[in-house]
Amino acid sequence: MNFQLPPEIAELQQRTRRFIAEQVIPLETSETHSGHGPSPELRAELVARARAAGLLTPHASKEMGGLGLSHVAKAAVFEEAGYSWLGPTALNIHAPDEGNIHLMEEVATPAQKERWLRPQVEGRTRSCFAMTEPSPGAGADPSMLATTAVRDGDEYLISGTKWFITGAEGADYVIIMARMEDGSATMFLSDMDRPEIVLERSMDAMDACFAGGHGVLRFNNLRVPASDVLGEVGKGFRYAQVRLAPARLTHCMRWLGQARRAHDIALDYVRKRQAFGKPLAEHEGVGFMLADNDMDLQTARLHIWHTAWLLDQGEKGNFESSRAKVVCSEAEWRVVDRCVQMLGGQGVTMETPVMRIFMDMRAFRIYDGPSEVHRWSMARKLVHMAEKAAAGAHA
Amino acid sequence: MNFQLPPEIAELQQRTRRFIAEQVIPLETSETHSGHGPSPELRAELVARARAAGLLTPHASKEMGGLGLSHVAKAAVFEEAGYSWLGPTALNIHAPDEGNIHLMEEVATPAQKERWLRPQVEGRTRSCFAMTEPSPGAGADPSMLATTAVRDGDEYLISGTKWFITGAEGADYVIIMARMEDGSATMFLSDMDRPEIVLERSMDAMDACFAGGHGVLRFNNLRVPASDVLGEVGKGFRYAQVRLAPARLTHCMRWLGQARRAHDIALDYVRKRQAFGKPLAEHEGVGFMLADNDMDLQTARLHIWHTAWLLDQGEKGNFESSRAKVVCSEAEWRVVDRCVQMLGGQGVTMETPVMRIFMDMRAFRIYDGPSEVHRWSMARKLVHMAEKAAAGAHA
Amino acid sequence: MNFQLPPEIAELQQRTRRFIAEQVIPLETSETHSGHGPSPELRAELVARARAAGLLTPHASKEMGGLGLSHVAKAAVFEEAGYSWLGPTALNIHAPDEGNIHLMEEVATPAQKERWLRPQVEGRTRSCFAMTEPSPGAGADPSMLATTAVRDGDEYLISGTKWFITGAEGADYVIIMARMEDGSATMFLSDMDRPEIVLERSMDAMDACFAGGHGVLRFNNLRVPASDVLGEVGKGFRYAQVRLAPARLTHCMRWLGQARRAHDIALDYVRKRQAFGKPLAEHEGVGFMLADNDMDLQTARLHIWHTAWLLDQGEKGNFESSRAKVVCSEAEWRVVDRCVQMLGGQGVTMETPVMRIFMDMRAFRIYDGPSEVHRWSMARKLVHMAEKAAAGAHA
Amino acid sequence: MNFQLPPEIAELQQRTRRFIAEQVIPLETSETHSGHGPSPELRAELVARARAAGLLTPHASKEMGGLGLSHVAKAAVFEEAGYSWLGPTALNIHAPDEGNIHLMEEVATPAQKERWLRPQVEGRTRSCFAMTEPSPGAGADPSMLATTAVRDGDEYLISGTKWFITGAEGADYVIIMARMEDGSATMFLSDMDRPEIVLERSMDAMDACFAGGHGVLRFNNLRVPASDVLGEVGKGFRYAQVRLAPARLTHCMRWLGQARRAHDIALDYVRKRQAFGKPLAEHEGVGFMLADNDMDLQTARLHIWHTAWLLDQGEKGNFESSRAKVVCSEAEWRVVDRCVQMLGGQGVTMETPVMRIFMDMRAFRIYDGPSEVHRWSMARKLVHMAEKAAAGAHA
Repeated sequence: MNFQLPPEIAELQQRTRRFIAEQVIPLETSETHSGHGPSPELRAELVARARAAGLLTPHASKEMGGLGLSHVAKAAVFEEAGYSWLGPTALNIHAPDEGNIHLMEEVATPAQKERWLRPQVEGRTRSCFAMTEPSPGAGADPSMLATTAVRDGDEYLISGTKWFITGAEGADYVIIMARMEDGSATMFLSDMDRPEIVLERSMDAMDACFAGGHGVLRFNNLRVPASDVLGEVGKGFRYAQVRLAPARLTHCMRWLGQARRAHDIALDYVRKRQAFGKPLAEHEGVGFMLADNDMDLQTARLHIWHTAWLLDQGEKGNFESSRAKVVCSEAEWRVVDRCVQMLGGQGVTMETPVMRIFMDMRAFRIYDGPSEVHRWSMARKLVHMAEKAAAGAHA
Repeated sequence: MNFQLPPEIAELQQRTRRFIAEQVIPLETSETHSGHGPSPELRAELVARARAAGLLTPHASKEMGGLGLSHVAKAAVFEEAGYSWLGPTALNIHAPDEGNIHLMEEVATPAQKERWLRPQVEGRTRSCFAMTEPSPGAGADPSMLATTAVRDGDEYLISGTKWFITGAEGADYVIIMARMEDGSATMFLSDMDRPEIVLERSMDAMDACFAGGHGVLRFNNLRVPASDVLGEVGKGFRYAQVRLAPARLTHCMRWLGQARRAHDIALDYVRKRQAFGKPLAEHEGVGFMLADNDMDLQTARLHIWHTAWLLDQGEKGNFESSRAKVVCSEAEWRVVDRCVQMLGGQGVTMETPVMRIFMDMRAFRIYDGPSEVHRWSMARKLVHMAEKAAAGAHA
Repeated sequence: MNFQLPPEIAELQQRTRRFIAEQVIPLETSETHSGHGPSPELRAELVARARAAGLLTPHASKEMGGLGLSHVAKAAVFEEAGYSWLGPTALNIHAPDEGNIHLMEEVATPAQKERWLRPQVEGRTRSCFAMTEPSPGAGADPSMLATTAVRDGDEYLISGTKWFITGAEGADYVIIMARMEDGSATMFLSDMDRPEIVLERSMDAMDACFAGGHGVLRFNNLRVPASDVLGEVGKGFRYAQVRLAPARLTHCMRWLGQARRAHDIALDYVRKRQAFGKPLAEHEGVGFMLADNDMDLQTARLHIWHTAWLLDQGEKGNFESSRAKVVCSEAEWRVVDRCVQMLGGQGVTMETPVMRIFMDMRAFRIYDGPSEVHRWSMARKLVHMAEKAAAGAHA
Repeated sequence: MNFQLPPEIAELQQRTRRFIAEQVIPLETSETHSGHGPSPELRAELVARARAAGLLTPHASKEMGGLGLSHVAKAAVFEEAGYSWLGPTALNIHAPDEGNIHLMEEVATPAQKERWLRPQVEGRTRSCFAMTEPSPGAGADPSMLATTAVRDGDEYLISGTKWFITGAEGADYVIIMARMEDGSATMFLSDMDRPEIVLERSMDAMDACFAGGHGVLRFNNLRVPASDVLGEVGKGFRYAQVRLAPARLTHCMRWLGQARRAHDIALDYVRKRQAFGKPLAEHEGVGFMLADNDMDLQTARLHIWHTAWLLDQGEKGNFESSRAKVVCSEAEWRVVDRCVQMLGGQGVTMETPVMRIFMDMRAFRIYDGPSEVHRWSMARKLVHMAEKAAAGAHA
């Protein structure tokens, strides 16, 4: 058992921390933190800085131009990047690109990689992932997928509406999840500049940290050649799992950075602000919130590390990443909510970044499976394991 | 013991409910719900509708043109008004005007009432209340008041900076809290269109339901005649209490309406949205949230009713209104947070009003004394009462 | 709306308070508070004192010898009685006799009342209620009832096993719930001194406040004449509801008294015990617990009052009594848990009564329907009401 | 980073698991689990079995006859031992002996070790630790120490009263904390069979898992030679810290085993018990509790492992062991409380061991510093670190 990072990862962690402090946080302004996420211009500047610092797309394989980080290394680096809400955009590790890059590395053909993945790893393009649909389509329950793909010779015709498609506005390519005639699901790749793809609107979301916001996309008989199927036909749900388990965990990592940032800001404030004859920090009620924050931050970090290590051992980690997702999303949320409370009026205004972190983070308890869905899937697994153990004991 | 509303109040409650449903909710749009609160034009329209419906400024005395509602009657009517975020603006019962009207009725001279209160009750003007200051001034601890009032003949010269001044932009008059040379505090009245009053900026707040938003005001040697002192010199802190106890409670009432609205929206959604083979509402995890919402809403309502009744009996109700404020702000917040969770992606976007309610309401755990300050003042009172009882028992 | 008790009830409340303080609490000793509840001798002494004070069985009708209290009056008196764990035994308002008396008043024939109810109201006998069964019988789900009643001429033959039968040891008569051949349920009355009724054992329970503890009963072809059917054949489940709604509420009342007792003891302790240079009560962390206790106690009380008032209006109050049961059992539990924490080591030993209250109260979140069952039944009702309202709106 | 146990520790973990299952759990009966802890006879039998299995006192150094376990190894083994409430007694790793053995190893002279430590490691004797005092002495605040030690030639005279002295009844020797004339504190060693040491009584505690229960001890001018001072004169508070940081952590480990046991029992129950047409485990509300249990158990385990690893690196770990203590005591408590709830009536009776675990564990949020004291000390450390960092940044 060992909780120490390898020296090269620890060095990368420190380097990322300095990069965020010196190159990224100075670009944070309220203008850059509203509406539908960082503008293309701001994104270009951030990516250029990360490229210059040697920190761009660090999770991509070395073949593709990344640093080939292990999951544990990602845990260290992504938390640091998340310390600024612009950090993930700078390092090109934001959602959904981070997960898409991972999925493409695992499943795409060499030709697909050259066409779509390489420019993305180089920070020159962005992508989106079109799975979620308006009612009665696929939401928390992916099996309700309503977008269809119909085979037509060597091509597929894709029709349907998707929403909450993060990064849709300005994305260069899209991974589309569609239902086949036999009820299975398949993933398709397509450039976004196609007339059959209509960005109906961008949704007004509480968060404002994702470049491209969240869009509503309509596919009107989009024609996709069979060569642009991602992976194998009919394996869409399986690939969604391939993408999701680590993607969930990287969410935990980035938001841990944001929660730590909020905590640092609140801690700084309560050390200085006086009330009732002494600094706020010397009031027990405030001190207890600081302690609870520290406990929640450390709890989140330990679950992330443990699950990342498991993934590095080659385990699928579906159960553990569900668990980490629930634990982290709820613990990190409590931290930020306490920070708002400690900051008082300043917590609910743009006087500090904490209000933005609060608004950005609320959806984390919902995205990639709401807490309730994960709890239920954990429960079924626990019961299943107990049944297997009981059967074994009686065998 | 009787939990029934008098028939005339029940009738007014139902009338308000219909007014909100038919006249106010149709004016809710995302445009009218962002930035610094309802625009002057929207406010004028809302007020005109309430005036036509006979529901304008119902808490003002009949002498001043209101309906002279008791606190219990306010509990019934304000909850209904709060069901729309535009409702309090329509009925002229929003913060800070609601509390200012109450304070003016209690303390102002007949001349002051004619000049400032009557047009406000008629919905023709707005006011603000300038107490909170940036560090190191008065925040949760009002005794740190830093704005000064210096006597100069028959006048006072007021200097200082205030922030989080709700409704400042567009307000017609202001009540200013300032520190006297002897350390006591006094309240002053002033028109806002004075060159010595500078609106430095409007703050970017999470909420967007208060007309005029929240401003930073600077008083540069503002000259106020002695006749514009509100009440008696040196009694500022006492009047702040006169204003606060019922003002806290009306916050509870209005937000209860908002929380009920969020609950109704979420309940409607989970009845219809399917997942995993049945409507969301038939999942126990969702059903438990509905039940918890109902419990929290009823808990808030019972505390409001009980405290309102106490105030109607002539009691000061400081302890009880502190208690109701903590209970309601936390219970109503839990309700809205659960609604966001039940709505999933729609809870964190403007697809439903719930996201706005969530953002509007967070500050309620902070405004008018954060939960922590109220808990502490309650604790001291409980200990004090126990000491008195123990002394009595031993006497 | 009115939160004041009628003068005669307020007087009775005060009288009960004094009776508990002067006549009952002095009989509390650790010997009388362990094992299977107050001994027969102690019970006799307590009942004699209540009889002398004119407080015995106050909820029974005047015809039967009680005071004919309304539900609101019970709320006032039972909270006071609950202040001592011996109080409900003294006043003859403990479970299950309290609920059995209520049920007998509602349903029993005059002959049954004279035979079983009158001596019980006079404090000369005790009863038990045999519904709950070991797996796979009726637990939280009463429809799983496994005990059978088979018609045999003018008699019924009852067979089955019941457990968690509160008060079984030493009870004089029993109300038995049994399944009929057509699947419906019927209630039967029987004396306990019958050879076909076997008290297999008394269970070792965490609580020790119920005279007679909790027993396991076996019915071996118990022969009951048709005249000893309680109410009508086949209406057992309906009567169980008649009994349960108010019985749940009287649990809330009595336990509120216990929670208030724990709070008073803890408050007294923290005022006196010093730590880190000042009394515990002057530490914010402790003060916050005191404030939270007060909020929880008042929340419980308000729900009790409101539901009692509804029952007094003739409403069934099933929804509201479920809600009150969940709110009270959880709020009162939090209070007692905080008291244990404030008392430190003394909270987990018999140095104060709080440890006993803690142990006695835990089951309240389970008895008469665990919180989860009530939450779910509330949810279904909320959805049902919303559907009806929606149907009405569209009609 | 590595979460794998070394093979020899993993093997020891499995061996302990089997030992508990096969040799210890069969000795669990309700008779052995009540009153003042395991009887001397039962303890002798348990110790004999552990000795035979090569598992006795595994945390003691190899010189003294133990296995010289690292802190990480203890984490693995103690959790397994804790799975039965008799396990820690069997392995001789129960409180307070476990901590006393650790302290003696660190501080005692060779002669003291031979006299008191060696027989204890061999499982032939027991000890107690006399620090806590009744009001106004040392409780959560150790600086209030009231027991005095007065130098008299080559001896000390110790006078005072201690309570909550775990294991006092039947202990062979005692470590006494006493205040010196200069205000400092010193630890003394003494055999218990001295006439000046009076066991006034054993306290009736909620827990029943500690051999010897919790006693009240009076020292009447106990005469202790200077050679029986433990460590150096005046260093009592420092040694208390030496003892406490790891002792706190071993509490976390053992109780984790108990919480896991409760979880396993509840999981087994809900898989089998039917209600409302399906096994309890298939109800979402129950499933969510299972998932929450798993999260809490894993959270506790991760904090234990991390802190144990830190201690193994030679760090003092005061902050981290405080944090682990709060996190684990609260997480493990939530687990057990949920298990009681899932078990329904069986959770509040001796039908399953869960009720005993519930009663045994409540004090863990209080012993070795209540959560509130740890939260406050964590807060001060966090503020102190932030101040140091800020000073460094500005230097």
